[in-house]
Parts: sequence; structure tokens; C-alpha cells
Amino acid sequence: MNFSGEIIFSPYLDAGIVNEDSNYDEFFWEILQIADGNNEGYILSKTLKTEFHVGTAMKISIELNNEKVEVSQQTKLKEKSLTYTYKLTVAEGDIATLYKYGSYVSSLNYKKEDLIKAAFSNVDVASQLGFEQLLNVQRNSWEEIWHMADIVIEGDIKAQQGIRFNIFQLNQTYLGTDARLNIGPKGFTGEKYGGSTYWDTEAYCIPFYMATKDADVAKNLLLYRYNQLDKAIENAEKLGFTNGAALYPMVTMNGEECHNEWEITFEEIHRNGAMVFGIYNYVNYTNDFDYVVNYGLEVMIAIARFWHQRANFSKAKNKYVILGVTGPNEYENNVNNNFYTNYLAKWCIEYTVDCLERVDNDYSEDINRLKTKLNLTAEEIDLWIDVADKMYFPFSEEHNVYLQQDGFLDKELIPVKELSKSNRPINQKWSWDRILRSCYIKQADVLQGMLLFEDKFTKNEIEHHFDFYEPITVHESSLSPCVHSILAASINRIPKAYEQYLRTSRLDLDDYNHEVNEGCHITSMAGTWMSIVQGFGGMRVWEDGILRFDLQIPKEWKSYSFTINFRGNIIKVYKSQSACNFYNESDNEIKMIVNNNEILIPSNQYVKV
Amino acid sequence: MNFSGEIIFSPYLDAGIVNEDSNYDEFFWEILQIADGNNEGYILSKTLKTEFHVGTAMKISIELNNEKVEVSQQTKLKEKSLTYTYKLTVAEGDIATLYKYGSYVSSLNYKKEDLIKAAFSNVDVASQLGFEQLLNVQRNSWEEIWHMADIVIEGDIKAQQGIRFNIFQLNQTYLGTDARLNIGPKGFTGEKYGGSTYWDTEAYCIPFYMATKDADVAKNLLLYRYNQLDKAIENAEKLGFTNGAALYPMVTMNGEECHNEWEITFEEIHRNGAMVFGIYNYVNYTNDFDYVVNYGLEVMIAIARFWHQRANFSKAKNKYVILGVTGPNEYENNVNNNFYTNYLAKWCIEYTVDCLERVDNDYSEDINRLKTKLNLTAEEIDLWIDVADKMYFPFSEEHNVYLQQDGFLDKELIPVKELSKSNRPINQKWSWDRILRSCYIKQADVLQGMLLFEDKFTKNEIEHHFDFYEPITVHESSLSPCVHSILAASINRIPKAYEQYLRTSRLDLDDYNHEVNEGCHITSMAGTWMSIVQGFGGMRVWEDGILRFDLQIPKEWKSYSFTINFRGNIIKVYKSQSACNFYNESDNEIKMIVNNNEILIPSNQYVKV
Repeated sequence: MNFSGEIIFSPYLDAGIVNEDSNYDEFFWEILQIADGNNEGYILSKTLKTEFHVGTAMKISIELNNEKVEVSQQTKLKEKSLTYTYKLTVAEGDIATLYKYGSYVSSLNYKKEDLIKAAFSNVDVASQLGFEQLLNVQRNSWEEIWHMADIVIEGDIKAQQGIRFNIFQLNQTYLGTDARLNIGPKGFTGEKYGGSTYWDTEAYCIPFYMATKDADVAKNLLLYRYNQLDKAIENAEKLGFTNGAALYPMVTMNGEECHNEWEITFEEIHRNGAMVFGIYNYVNYTNDFDYVVNYGLEVMIAIARFWHQRANFSKAKNKYVILGVTGPNEYENNVNNNFYTNYLAKWCIEYTVDCLERVDNDYSEDINRLKTKLNLTAEEIDLWIDVADKMYFPFSEEHNVYLQQDGFLDKELIPVKELSKSNRPINQKWSWDRILRSCYIKQADVLQGMLLFEDKFTKNEIEHHFDFYEPITVHESSLSPCVHSILAASINRIPKAYEQYLRTSRLDLDDYNHEVNEGCHITSMAGTWMSIVQGFGGMRVWEDGILRFDLQIPKEWKSYSFTINFRGNIIKVYKSQSACNFYNESDNEIKMIVNNNEILIPSNQYVKV
Repeated sequence: MNFSGEIIFSPYLDAGIVNEDSNYDEFFWEILQIADGNNEGYILSKTLKTEFHVGTAMKISIELNNEKVEVSQQTKLKEKSLTYTYKLTVAEGDIATLYKYGSYVSSLNYKKEDLIKAAFSNVDVASQLGFEQLLNVQRNSWEEIWHMADIVIEGDIKAQQGIRFNIFQLNQTYLGTDARLNIGPKGFTGEKYGGSTYWDTEAYCIPFYMATKDADVAKNLLLYRYNQLDKAIENAEKLGFTNGAALYPMVTMNGEECHNEWEITFEEIHRNGAMVFGIYNYVNYTNDFDYVVNYGLEVMIAIARFWHQRANFSKAKNKYVILGVTGPNEYENNVNNNFYTNYLAKWCIEYTVDCLERVDNDYSEDINRLKTKLNLTAEEIDLWIDVADKMYFPFSEEHNVYLQQDGFLDKELIPVKELSKSNRPINQKWSWDRILRSCYIKQADVLQGMLLFEDKFTKNEIEHHFDFYEPITVHESSLSPCVHSILAASINRIPKAYEQYLRTSRLDLDDYNHEVNEGCHITSMAGTWMSIVQGFGGMRVWEDGILRFDLQIPKEWKSYSFTINFRGNIIKVYKSQSACNFYNESDNEIKMIVNNNEILIPSNQYVKV
């Protein structure tokens, strides 16, 4: 203390949360119990619709010159909060310390009647361990995390700070030990999106967790959807689908759809494809085909059934069409034949049929179990295949590109750079109909498809589509810059890739969109990670299961390095302007393709490429 | 009385209105003042957002055996209601009568501070006149109304009852003496649509009021929109339109848009065309071109500006297109090149240019006034004309029909009759996306355009389009059957016309849609009237101003007759299975074309055709 006198501490618990997101100031929480005690207290509350019960406890201890002291406690107990007041007389030079140990426990992990006990038990354990020891535990956990997940960039402090901030937030949000949990677009940093799960997980987050954790973590994310398959089938039934067809929700807490706009819930159906892509990506990377046999195929079959029913045959086009959809580019609604959606639909069916064949060949018991359980016949599969074979894709001969949707070329194609600044961001400056009618793209759509299935397109095709679509893309979704950064790198446009990398990695730090008060863009942070590892690093693993790299480096960087866990083997990758090294930390020899050359890295060895 | 004893009367005023339409039980009304008195009392209240103040008064008088008696009054004054209780001792055979005179006055017609006084003055006058005299006044007013508006159908009681119920409701809703008032889709019979004004007025209601009242009534309906032009320009400005372009609201109380779904407010822009059609229809029927000069052209120019800006040039089609609209068929959203919308847009511009030319030729002072006031140049008009000249219309060579919208033929065209009953009505049985993707049409769309501009299409074309679209129309809008009834009659399909006539005329009486608790379909009732006069009667007045009839009769009817007011001349029309008569009640000779033959009807004479 730099004075002598009285010092007052007022630790508190406050369950009087005001939700910014509520209508008519409705409360999302109800307080069930609140009680004070001797240096400790608790609040038991529950969320209103989901009925999550949460116990919160605090325990206070006070030290004077590092010696525990008993200080008389004054209690203020309000309807929704509990505040203690401690008055301490100190002399100049004294050290006064208040420790507040807190605990949250929820009915996800405890019986409701045990919540209070559990919360108290936690603060007891914590206070016995004490602050320093808790800090050590925390420090060690983070060290382990950083050992796997850190990316080091030399020579570009802004870039370095950006990626570390992103990696930190991703690990703050999700550890992967519980398949009932998932990743909200804002994590726990803001109320927006209500902590719900979106297709972001499958399309953006899984690669980060696969490469920086053990395979179980990504598997838990996949199991989250497997466990909600019944709800997805129910959701599809509500929309008139039959025969076990599933439509996963756009937004969910418990498997039920909790978005409420028709153009999203009913029409942004490409999310169903992301569910299958997540499985495909996981199996490619981990080689855990058992997941497909034991869980994945049920999801995939239900989704193939959905696409089969959702498409219809157009006599005019003599092809199957998918009408009335919203693609990843939400600046178009209710369009016909969105390229990305149609492509995913066709691919989902084909991949499901491929997996079924493999199971048929190699897992005869399982194929019978599945066919019986799901009432699946060869005739039904033929109907799916017909849809996949005759799927329509809008294509412009003139521009030599796949069109985002049937009517795209009726729009005036004016590049974003010709828009005056006063029009940007268009989602704040323009009316919704004007946005819908314009050519401007919120986030990668055709290009998103080309990224996910890059092995099925030539570099030339990707370059061509990039040059057509990127100039009319406004990147007003946080999920846009990372996709463009990776694709730009893959077509050797490193300055563009770098520009988009900075945009994705510093989105929240620099608050580009003046909205960070709503929370950080957690799921797009996984995209930032991909911008380095898949973008500049060029890491890919396709169906052949081969680990590929194609390393490039922005001129602004001296070097960068990252670590990946590939099928249980830890590999460190280093790239500078002049050198490229791999270090195989594992006990196995690793085969990979680097810049189109196959190389072998012996166990625990460096290899220069 | 059939007993001796005590009888209790409890007349009351109750302003505690509970609105079915409110969210979170919000109140729409606030009570400002409530007071009791000697046999009289009042409540002053106001609506919350629109701030309409309403004064309500009641005055009670009690008679025993037709002699006024004073009975002691007990008063129950609550927060929102006022109830008096009167106890009367009666003997068997006595006649006990309570008269409750009521009055509503609103701040539309009085200063707020005078409302109470006015309400009391009204009940005073009413009670002095007394019940019998008030009843006589009412009877005489209705007699006058029925003299002009009645339609007599012989030999078909259901049809007769239907049309009379409709005519009664239309007159209950709107008398046309106040240009600040308009016609809500439910009139005053239900809360739904909140008493607001829709395009129904211009497209459906004006013909009824034009033909059964003096021209002033229809003119007041048009002036309602003229007086709200500033708000329509403001509405368009909010959406990014400039230079005085106007977008009339889809739903309004005071000129401002008060609908809240983007696919309606921003996209169902065909309503703007109805505003111009209303003027065109009025001028054709009344010959009051002065209305165009003094009021109409300002509206028309603002709307031409809107269409010019709303269309864009498609390089792919080498035509102007109108993207992202919702047509009258609200079972499709955000479609491109809706035939009806594109047709109206082109027509609005052309009609506006025609009118401007006529004013230029015949009203030189006015043309200068308008051009100066609206900053209108020949160059701007040329830009409009370019849009009109190069407007795109989706057309199918295969089916030889104009398509409802660009993507229509990608849909599966399965006739309604092949849908099982369990799917109907689709708006209660199907998810919204399924409805949108289906071919099913809620109400006439292409056919609506062909009805409004029937003189611009051949009978053959109309027949062809009717056969293409009617079988896939579910008529789940109350505004659908009347249009199909008229068109069916115009292509000599009398059984179909009759079927649709019964559906439109008895919609509420028979509660076809199980929703009459929401209120009667007032605006569609004007369509019912049209089904007879324009449908079976074949009455038309196009730009040449000639009154035309083409009379047919369903086999179920002995005869039908109706009366019209054409330019101040009263004409009675009678059609039976074998005969057709006109009676000219006016002092002028009337020229008309009946079944393609020109005839002259001398003043006050019958003519058999």
C-alpha cells in the first residue's frame, strides 16, 4: 500500500445478467436460489427455455502481508446478486490481498440437486490449492497447447500477434473433451449467435483441431452431429421430407433448428453438405474409416436421402435442379441452382455411395446392420445416383465460369473497387433488396466449393473463377478473407494472399468491421490458421491420404513455422525466404509430397527440402 | 315481461380491448380519461403509435310501458370500463325498454380537446331523435344504397345471398366521403391486416365504387394516394431511389410502409403499378382527365421514375430486367422477371408518357407547371422509354405462354387436381420452402395482368394462358377466384366462371377457409361484384371510353340484373336465359357496344338486345 488507512473489498456474485439480444427485455435466466455464508456464497439459476441449471459459488480469503487474516464480513443480498464487503485497516507498505475463488457447474455434468454441493466442492479444492498452484496448473496446460498449436512468424509483428491471438481464442473456446459441446461463432466472447453451433464447425474449425490435437477432438465434433441425427431427421420431417432424410439445423443448441428466417433455415441447405464434408475431411486426415462405418454412414445416408428428395427433375433443362436455396453468399436468397449447393449435393451422394461400396466390400456385417437399420435398398441408391449423375450446374460459355446461380448474369457486374466508399459496407448502407439484386458477394460461394474440392479442379480453372468472383466480393462475412487467402496462395498470388491473411488474422484486434463489441469471430479464427497452414504452407490431405505441402512465403516475412499432428505423428514445418525444413518428432518415418516431390522424413530427424 | 319481479340492466363502455394481433400482449390503446355522470358517461383513449384520439360516449334512457322513467343508477368505474346498473321492478305484461345511445368521435375530425364535447353532443342529438327516427334515417340511407348497388339473381338463392352479403359489407366499410380513409382487407370486421390499406383498393375495389356511386367516391380513393405521394417518395429514398421516384407502401395507415417482411415490402413492387392502373381505370370510366392533369400525373411520373431505376440492363439478355421481386402470387419470392411486374412497369411508363403528351398538347400551362415542379426533362423521359421499349418478358416457345418468372419451367408442373386432399391448403400443410419450390399459384399473376389489360391480348392468348395457369392455381388468396371467374366468362367458360363465382361470393358465408373468425374478406367482395358485372355481364370500359357489355348467364340462374352509374347516367341491366334488356334511367342518350354491336339507348327508355 502507498498509504495508511482503510481499504474496502467488495467481491460479489451477480446473476442479474441483462441480455443485449433479448426482445422486449425478456430475461433468459431465472434465479432459483441465492445464499450467503461465511466467506462463501452461491447462486443457483437456470436458463428459461433450455433449462440448463447452473450453480455458481465463490469463496473469499484475505491475506495481510501474505498471512491469512479473518476480516468481518458485511453481506448485501439482493434479488439477483450477493456482495460481501470487507474493511481492512492497512499501514503504508502493507500488502493486502483478496483471493476470490469461483466455480461454475452445470446440469450438463451434475444432477440438478448436486449443483450447489459441486460448486462448493470446487471452490474448496481451489482455495486449498491456492492461487499460485492454480496458476501453475493453468500455465502448464497452456504450455502443452502452445507446443502443438503455436505458429511463429519472424519479421512481421502484426502478423505474428494476429495468429497467436487467434490460436489463443480457439483454445479458450473448445478443448474437445466433450462431444456434447461445440463451437459458437463468437465462442464465449459475446452474446451474438447465442453460443449456438453453425456449419462453421465442419467447414472451418475441424482442420485446426485435427492438426493441433489428437484425433479424438475432431471426432468429438463429428459425434456431436451424429448424436443429433434424430433431431435432424425430425427437422426434415417438419419440412415434408420422408424416409429418414435429414436436414441439419442452421443454428442449434441441442439439435433442433433455432434460427427463424425462412431464407436461412429452409433454404441455406448447403450446411447439410458441410456435415458430410467434415466426415470426409476427418477420414482423409486421420485414416479413421471406422468412424464412417460406426457413425458417419448413418449421417451420410440420411443426407443423401435429403438431396435426392430436395432436387427435382427439370424437363426444361433435362437435368436435376435444386430450386429455392441460399448459398454461402447470403447476399442472394431463394435462388435456383446455386453452384456450391448443387455441387455438394452431387458430391455427398457420390461419396456416400463410395463409402457404402467400401463397407460392402470390407465390412460385411456392418453393411447388413446398416441396410437393415436404415431400410436401405439397392433401388433407393440407384435413385440417388440418378440425381447425382444428372445434376445441373449453371455455366457461362461466355465467361467460361460456373455461375453462382441461374440468374447471376442478369446482374450488373461492376467491380467492388468502382463502388464509392460511401456505399460500404453495403450491409449497413443499402436496403436488403438492393443487396440481393446486386452482384456483390458476401463470402466465397463458388470459390468455397473450389476450395473444399480443390483436387477436382485445375489450377487454371481456380484462377479463372478467382478472377471472376473475387473482384465482386465484399468480404462482409468474417469467413470470407481466409478462403480467398488460401485460394490466392494456391494460385501463387502471394500479395493477395497476404492482404487477405492480414484481414482475417487482425479482424478483431483491429476491429475492422466496428463490431468487436459483439464478440470475437472465433470460427473465422480457425480460417486464419488455415490461411497459414493450408494457404502459405499449402498443406492438403485428399482421399489418397497423402500429406502434401506446397510452401510459399510472403515477402514481408523472414520465416514462419508451425506444428501439425498427422495421424499421431508430430511434424514441425519451417519455411524462410531461402529454406524449408521439416522435423519429424515422431517415432515413425513419414512420407509426404512437398512441392510435388515425394520425400521421406525419418523418425526424429530434420529434412531440408 | 312474462314474469313479475326485478329486472337488471347493465349497459357499459369498455375500452379494455385485447388485441389478438399483439406481440407479448402489448396494448395498442391507452385510456386517457374515463368519467361517469347521470345516465351518461365517456371514455377518452388514444392509439399508441398513430396517436389517434377517440372519444366514446353513451347515454342511457329507460322506459316502462313506453313512458320514460327515472331509475336510480349504480356505477362501477374500473380502470378501463364504465358500467351502470339499473334495477327495475316490473309486473307481468309490462314492457321495459333500455335505450343506449352511443357515439364515437376521433381526432381525425375534431380537435383533441373537443372530443368529449362532440361525443356528448352526438348522443344528445341521437337521444332527442330517439330510436325510431334513427332507424328511419338508417333505413332511408340503405334504400338509396341498394337502389344503386343491388344485384338481383333469380333462381339461385345461394348466389343471390352471396352477392347481397358482399354488397352490404362493402357499403358498411366505405362510403367514400373522406379522402383520408381507405378500405382495409377486412374492413371493420376483424383485426387482421390492422385496418391498413393494400393494393386491393386500386386493383379490386375501385370498379365497384365507380359503378355504384358518384365519381367523387372513386376520386377520393385516388386522392388518398395522391396525398401520400411524399411518403411514397420518402419510402423509395430509404431504399436508395433518387430523383423523386416513389414506391407506395404494401401496407399503410398514413402513407408509411408498415409491413415488415423484406420479400413483401422491398420486393412486391407491382403494387406501384396498381396505383397507376387505378388512375387509368378511373379516367377510362369517368372521362375525368382533369384528375390526371391536376393530381394523377405527379403520382405517375414518380412511379415511372421508380421503374426506370428499378430495372437494370442485362447484358446476357440484351434487355432490361427486373430482378428480385415478388409478384401477386406470393407463393414465389424474390424471383426475376415476374411477367406481371415487368408488364406493369413497361405499361406504367408508356401510359405516363402518353398522358404527358396529351397534357403537352392540350394543357400547355399545366405541362410547364409539372415539368418545373418535378424537374422533368425530355432527356429523362427518353431514358424511361428506353426501359419500356427494351423490357424483357420470359416466354416459353414450347408452351407458347408468358412465364410467371424466369425459373418457372424448372418446376415440376403437376396439376392441383393430382394433389391429395391431405396436402390442402398447402399454406397450412407444407413448409414455406416447399411452397416456394412448387408450381402452385396462390392467386392470379400472369392472368391478373391479362385481366387488367385484356384489350391488349387476343381471346386465344387468354384462353391459352388460362389453360396453362389455372390448373396449377390453388386459389388460397381470397382475391383469386374472382379474377378467374371473370376471365373464365370472358373466354366463354361459364361453368368454370360459375364455380369460381360461388367460391368468391360465399367465401365468408360458408367459411371455406376456416378463418372467418379473422374477419370478412372485404376487398375480395368487390371482386365478387366484378365477377357478375364484368364476368357474366362482360362490362368493360377501355381507353376509348366506350361502355361495352358482353352478356352471358350461368345455366343455374333464371336471370340477373344490376345497375351502374356510367358518367352520371344510371343504367339498369337485365339478363335472363332468353332475354337481355337495358333501361336508361338518365336524361341522356347512351351509346354502348353490346355483344360487339353498337346500340343507342334513348333517355328513360328500355331497349331489348
